[in-house]
Amino acid sequence: MAQNKDILLSSLCFDAAGLVPVIAQDADTEEVLMLAWMNAEAIEETLKTGRVCYYSRSRKALWRKGERSGQTQTLVEMRLDCDGDVLLVRVKQKGVACHTGHKSCFFRKVEGKKWIEDKDVIIPEEELYAD
Amino acid sequence: MAQNKDILLSSLCFDAAGLVPVIAQDADTEEVLMLAWMNAEAIEETLKTGRVCYYSRSRKALWRKGERSGQTQTLVEMRLDCDGDVLLVRVKQKGVACHTGHKSCFFRKVEGKKWIEDKDVIIPEEELYAD
Repeated sequence: MAQNKDILLSSLCFDAAGLVPVIAQDADTEEVLMLAWMNAEAIEETLKTGRVCYYSRSRKALWRKGERSGQTQTLVEMRLDCDGDVLLVRVKQKGVACHTGHKSCFFRKVEGKKWIEDKDVIIPEEELYAD
Repeated sequence: MAQNKDILLSSLCFDAAGLVPVIAQDADTEEVLMLAWMNAEAIEETLKTGRVCYYSRSRKALWRKGERSGQTQTLVEMRLDCDGDVLLVRVKQKGVACHTGHKSCFFRKVEGKKWIEDKDVIIPEEELYAD
């Protein structure tokens, strides 16, 4: 078991901080939801539990997506790129991925010479983090 | 014009190396193709020319995608995430995105306790880089 985990992790090239960037994509709609980071422990937990767990660079701790907001991600598939230094997780997104209440963090696009918001807020931010 | 460019770039949070990660997604199929990096110059060139230009961290130079292989990416849309530190480019991919000849760099997935390849090579690597 430990050996098998090593086979998975030994294919990965972590950066100097021990992290890899992780793209999250909605497995139903194919929408790109967000980019976050995982360390080895987050990858192992995600694969073991099926619930996506990132590593928060600001909090320097494991970040079980949705632990505060309830907007969890269930792993459908974990993919690895050719260089072994980027992961793609295809997920079932409960509610919204973005802390702003948008489904995806990529709710702005270039139009002309500025960024415009072209996606709706699905859940108001104050509802996401009300206790 | 210079001022307008500044409005676009001032919304971005570059890392200590002056880069942002960029997710490339096929605008027709929604497939996630790759992750690479851009600096301010690469972003400006991409927006100006409509041809996707990254920054190669290994070569420390602008990397006009497809300059050797011919597998260019035409920009359809450039999107920015909530924190301003990740870009998503939706592109028309000519041929394949990956230097291995797979359409997407994410041609491996976790199955059981190992990585398996579940995507076909579309163009043999030796054809991509034949001169």
